[in-house]
Amino acid sequence: MILTVTLNAALDVTYRVAALVPGGSHRVEAVYSRAGGKGVNVARVLAGQGHDVVVTGLVGGATGAGIRADLRRAGLVDEMVESEGESRRTVNVVAGGDATIFNEPGPRLPESAWAAFRTRFTVLAARAAVVVLSGSLPPTLPVDAYAELVRLAADAETIVDADGAPLRAALAAAPDVVTPNAAELAAATGSPDPVVAIEALRAAGARTVVATFGADGLVASGPGVALRARPPTRVAGNPTGAGDACVAALAAGCAAGTPWRERLRGAVAWSTAAVAAEAAGDVDIATCRRIHPDVIVEELRESGTDR
Amino acid sequence: MILTVTLNAALDVTYRVAALVPGGSHRVEAVYSRAGGKGVNVARVLAGQGHDVVVTGLVGGATGAGIRADLRRAGLVDEMVESEGESRRTVNVVAGGDATIFNEPGPRLPESAWAAFRTRFTVLAARAAVVVLSGSLPPTLPVDAYAELVRLAADAETIVDADGAPLRAALAAAPDVVTPNAAELAAATGSPDPVVAIEALRAAGARTVVATFGADGLVASGPGVALRARPPTRVAGNPTGAGDACVAALAAGCAAGTPWRERLRGAVAWSTAAVAAEAAGDVDIATCRRIHPDVIVEELRESGTDR
Repeated sequence: MILTVTLNAALDVTYRVAALVPGGSHRVEAVYSRAGGKGVNVARVLAGQGHDVVVTGLVGGATGAGIRADLRRAGLVDEMVESEGESRRTVNVVAGGDATIFNEPGPRLPESAWAAFRTRFTVLAARAAVVVLSGSLPPTLPVDAYAELVRLAADAETIVDADGAPLRAALAAAPDVVTPNAAELAAATGSPDPVVAIEALRAAGARTVVATFGADGLVASGPGVALRARPPTRVAGNPTGAGDACVAALAAGCAAGTPWRERLRGAVAWSTAAVAAEAAGDVDIATCRRIHPDVIVEELRESGTDR
Repeated sequence: MILTVTLNAALDVTYRVAALVPGGSHRVEAVYSRAGGKGVNVARVLAGQGHDVVVTGLVGGATGAGIRADLRRAGLVDEMVESEGESRRTVNVVAGGDATIFNEPGPRLPESAWAAFRTRFTVLAARAAVVVLSGSLPPTLPVDAYAELVRLAADAETIVDADGAPLRAALAAAPDVVTPNAAELAAATGSPDPVVAIEALRAAGARTVVATFGADGLVASGPGVALRARPPTRVAGNPTGAGDACVAALAAGCAAGTPWRERLRGAVAWSTAAVAAEAAGDVDIATCRRIHPDVIVEELRESGTDR
């Protein structure tokens, strides 16, 4: 079983408007909402590809109830922990092809919520082959929350998809995989050179770094792994959700013990298929199957990533 | 007692962001929410000035519960009618001094909700000296909803602050006062000339038209009333809520049977004081008292509004 953790679960609300005019007053033509937060999105992709996945994290208040209702609708196994503190929303304003996103910071939680979560997490993680820790932390959680969860998940492979201070703090617990994108890589290390930055994350404790570079594919560097993978062609579409699809593929590969070359092939195919999918966050299975055999995987040269 | 009606009650949510970038992803620095919809805002102003006011309308779902919780916090007398259909939100993105507003359309309500509301409204309106009908209608309510409520409130003075088709349909029931702004006046009548438009609304059934023109003040035209009122000086600030403060003052004047000259003086003072208030929707009482004696009220000349 793959366990995805979303400590700052969200209700993702989409507003369709005719045009976005800063300073203007907008009639919202249509409103859609669904459960979100990176861990939930990863679980959605995994469930859509037939994997055994369980969703946990922290939810609260009426928005938390809305999140859980949508998890039920989506058929996801919901092991969310209820807490005080209203769950956050994100508002995604879509005008024509452009999306403008507003991310609420999330609730202020009592220490008891974090304690209750750790207790439940320990039980769930003991049943998991892979634990995926994704996204931002609610403002009051300790910055080393991911480090603590990696330690509590001692018998599972751990994947951390985080940013900034929570990512840096997680490294001390030696997560099996971290998955920064180019901006996160630079922000976490202060280095504009991805090769230097990747090695810095490994030196700080990450076992394998899978750094993602959008349409340019990804680079994996770890014990016995020095690979680069990229899509055979450019695909037009919406990049929202491509990162979560990549993490989902890495988790699936991890759970199955797939060799790294194959794991990266899957990660590129799934994330490219997410870009091609009509709805943000979905993965287009036909695109996935079509691209998969043609994904280019190469050994990295000693001298670096050649970027 | 003054009864304010908000059929499309809202939870008004404010997002503070550093800067609004269309197509960008924004970290929301602070989130505030409070009960809204024009009728609620009018009631807030009236209660703040010590008037006896009751709030009714339709609310539903978790957002409706949030609206009622805030009405309680604000000390407003809450006679909202619960219905199926999640109440709407408005999202107000504030970046520096600029506000960008997104208005959800509101819930799709079953016919039973409208029937239940009419029953409760009839009882409440029988106790009211003045009934204020404000704002948009949820999408499934009949377009002549305000006309029907004006007829049901036969023993009260009625003020309709609406727009477009609901305003036009309300006229057939001969509301005592309608309060269009310049844009609403033009939209409701198709006439760019405010004098012509005001007379068109009266011909269609409105007893008195109080047309508002922002910092230029207002024009009142009805049986025995042909007045123009304007602030003695320009005031800097936020015009959000000035219209609701104007309607609140008209309702207070109506309830007290104040002569029209005095009523308009109050409407200009309250709306100018709303512009000067620090928080949108509040009325700055010191500004109100200072401006009140100096508001300029003039008879309209036969030839028109002189605009």
